[in-house]
Amino acid sequence: MTLQEQSQSMLPALEAELKRQVARFDHPESAGFHEMLSFHMGWSDEASGNPAKRVRPLLMLLVVAACPGQWLRAIPAAAAIELVHNFSLVHDDIQDNSTTRRGRVTAWKKYGVPMAVNMGDALFAISNQAVLDVSAHFPPEVVLAAAASLHAACIALTRGQYLDMSYERRTDLRVDDYWPMVEGKTAALLAASTEMGAILGGAMGDRVRYFAGFGHNVGLAFQVQDDILGIWGDEQATGKSTASDLIEGKNSLPVLHGLAHSPEFAERWAGPAIAPEETPHLAQLLKDEGAFAYCVREAERLTGLAMESLRAADPQGEAGEALRELADTLLQRQS
Amino acid sequence: MTLQEQSQSMLPALEAELKRQVARFDHPESAGFHEMLSFHMGWSDEASGNPAKRVRPLLMLLVVAACPGQWLRAIPAAAAIELVHNFSLVHDDIQDNSTTRRGRVTAWKKYGVPMAVNMGDALFAISNQAVLDVSAHFPPEVVLAAAASLHAACIALTRGQYLDMSYERRTDLRVDDYWPMVEGKTAALLAASTEMGAILGGAMGDRVRYFAGFGHNVGLAFQVQDDILGIWGDEQATGKSTASDLIEGKNSLPVLHGLAHSPEFAERWAGPAIAPEETPHLAQLLKDEGAFAYCVREAERLTGLAMESLRAADPQGEAGEALRELADTLLQRQS
Repeated sequence: MTLQEQSQSMLPALEAELKRQVARFDHPESAGFHEMLSFHMGWSDEASGNPAKRVRPLLMLLVVAACPGQWLRAIPAAAAIELVHNFSLVHDDIQDNSTTRRGRVTAWKKYGVPMAVNMGDALFAISNQAVLDVSAHFPPEVVLAAAASLHAACIALTRGQYLDMSYERRTDLRVDDYWPMVEGKTAALLAASTEMGAILGGAMGDRVRYFAGFGHNVGLAFQVQDDILGIWGDEQATGKSTASDLIEGKNSLPVLHGLAHSPEFAERWAGPAIAPEETPHLAQLLKDEGAFAYCVREAERLTGLAMESLRAADPQGEAGEALRELADTLLQRQS
Repeated sequence: MTLQEQSQSMLPALEAELKRQVARFDHPESAGFHEMLSFHMGWSDEASGNPAKRVRPLLMLLVVAACPGQWLRAIPAAAAIELVHNFSLVHDDIQDNSTTRRGRVTAWKKYGVPMAVNMGDALFAISNQAVLDVSAHFPPEVVLAAAASLHAACIALTRGQYLDMSYERRTDLRVDDYWPMVEGKTAALLAASTEMGAILGGAMGDRVRYFAGFGHNVGLAFQVQDDILGIWGDEQATGKSTASDLIEGKNSLPVLHGLAHSPEFAERWAGPAIAPEETPHLAQLLKDEGAFAYCVREAERLTGLAMESLRAADPQGEAGEALRELADTLLQRQS
C-alpha cells in the first residue's frame, strides 16, 4: 500500500474518533458549544475553506504500523495529538490577532476572545481524556508512557509560545534564540507524535528514541522550510503571500540571520512595520547577505538528521515505505 | 490533630510541590515566564495581597489520610488539582475582564491577554504531568484512575464556563439553568478533589462514590452560599462589596429566582447595567419575593447532602474529624 492508500484507511477512522471525542459536549445544554468546536474542526456546513491535513496523527499511526503494531488500536491517541494541535491553533490565533485560518474565519473572530479561550481549553481537556482511551487495548504502564509523552510536548509548546511572544519586544535576538522557540512551537508535538507511535507500536529501547528524533528533526526541518517560503516562497504554490513573514514581523530564521549579518536590514527591522512594497528589496537584501543559502543548508542538514533517525528506527513494511514518502513530501515542499 | 494542625503539615508540603512543578519553566531562556507564573501563584516578592487558601488540594489530602492512606505520597496529585484551579482562574479573569484577584492585579492586566492565555495553558499542561508524578508510589492503574478523574473535571469545567458565558446574552433563564452551570464551574473540581483523594487513599467501591458526592455537594452548597453573600453579604466579613453580583450582572441563584418571581426585578435586570445606588432596593425586592429564603433552604439542603455523603464515606481518625471541620468552615461562612 502506498502512502495515499494507507492515509485513505487511516484518516476516516481518525476523523470519526475526533468527532466522537468532541461529542463529549454534544448535550442539550451545551449543543451551542459543540457547534462552535465543530466549526473550528471543519465539520459544520458553514465551514468552507481548506480541510486540515492531520499530519501529526497520520505520522503517529504510520509509526505504530511500522513498528509493526496495530494502528487502529492507537486511534484515540492520534485524536489526542490532533486535539492538542487544534487547541494551540485556537489560542495562537487569539495571541497573533489572526482573523483567518485554512480559509475560514478564526474562532475568536467569530465567537469573541472569551469564548475562544474556552474553546481551546475544551479541546485541550478532551485531548487528555482521549489519550487515556487507549486503555481499552494497552496495558496501563504503556498508556501512562504515551500520556507522559503528550503532556511533555504540551509543556514544551507553552514554553515555545512564551519565547515567541517574548521575542516580539526584543531587539537583540540572535540565530541561537531561534532553536529553543521552534523546538517548543513546532518540533515538540511532532516528536511526541512519533514517540507515542513508537510506544503504542511496541517499539523498545533505542527505537523509541530514534522515532522521537525523526519527528523532532522533521519538525525543525519543516519549520525552516516554512520560514524560507515565508520570505522567498511562491504565493501560488504555498497559498501564503510572498514575504508575508516580513510584513507580519515574524522572527523567522532568515530574519535572525539578517539581523546578525546585514546592518541595513537590522536597522529597517528595528523601525516601524514593513509595508508590502518594501518586501522585494528586503528579501533581496537577506539573500545577498547569505540568509537564503544558510537556511537552505540548515533545512538540508535537519532533513538529513530526520532521515538518519528514521533509518535507525528501522520502520517495517509498507507503513515504513509510507513514512519515508510522507517525510519526503513534508520536507521538499519547494519542489 | 485538629484541622489547623493537619493543614500546617500538609500545606507547606503542597506549596513546595507546586513550586517544584512550576519550576519546569525555570530555565535561562524561559526565566521570565517562570517569574510570571510565580507572580500569579503568589510567590514573587512583589506579590502582595491575600494568600490562596488551597482548599481543593487540602480537601484531597485530608480524604487520602481519612481513607486511611498516606497523604504525603499523593502530594503531586494535590498540586495538579491546584494547578487546574489556577489555570481556570487565569483564563476566567480574561473572560470576565477582572482586573484584581486576591488583592493583586490579574495576569492579563499585568502581562497582556496573549501572555495570560499562555500562562493558563502552561499551568494546565503542568497539571497533567503533575498527576502522573504519583507513579513513583502508586500502581499504574491507580494513577490512570486519578488522572481520568481530573481530566473529566476539566471537561466539565470548560462546559460550565461555556454555559456561564452563553447565559450572558440570554433573557429567558430559569432556576433550572443554574445547576448545570455551577456543577461545571464549581462542583466538578471539588468532586474530583475528593474522588482522587479516595482513589489514592485506597478506598474501594461505593466509598469512592460517597467521597466524590461529598465534594460535589460541598461545591454546590459553597456556590449557593457565595451567591447569597454576593447580594446580601456583609462587606467586612467577605471582602466583597455588598450586592456586587448585581452590579456585575452575574446570573446567580437569587437572580434566577427573582427573574421567575418578581416581574419588577425581571424588567430591571433586562435593562442597562445596575448602578451601586440601586442595589439596596433590588436586594430588598429579591428578599421580598422569597429569593433569600429559597437560597438559604437550598444551601441547607446541599449542606445536608454533603454531610450525609461524608458520613456514608466513613472517614477515619483525626483526618476524618478534620474533614468534617473543614466542611463546616466552608459551608457556614455567614456565621
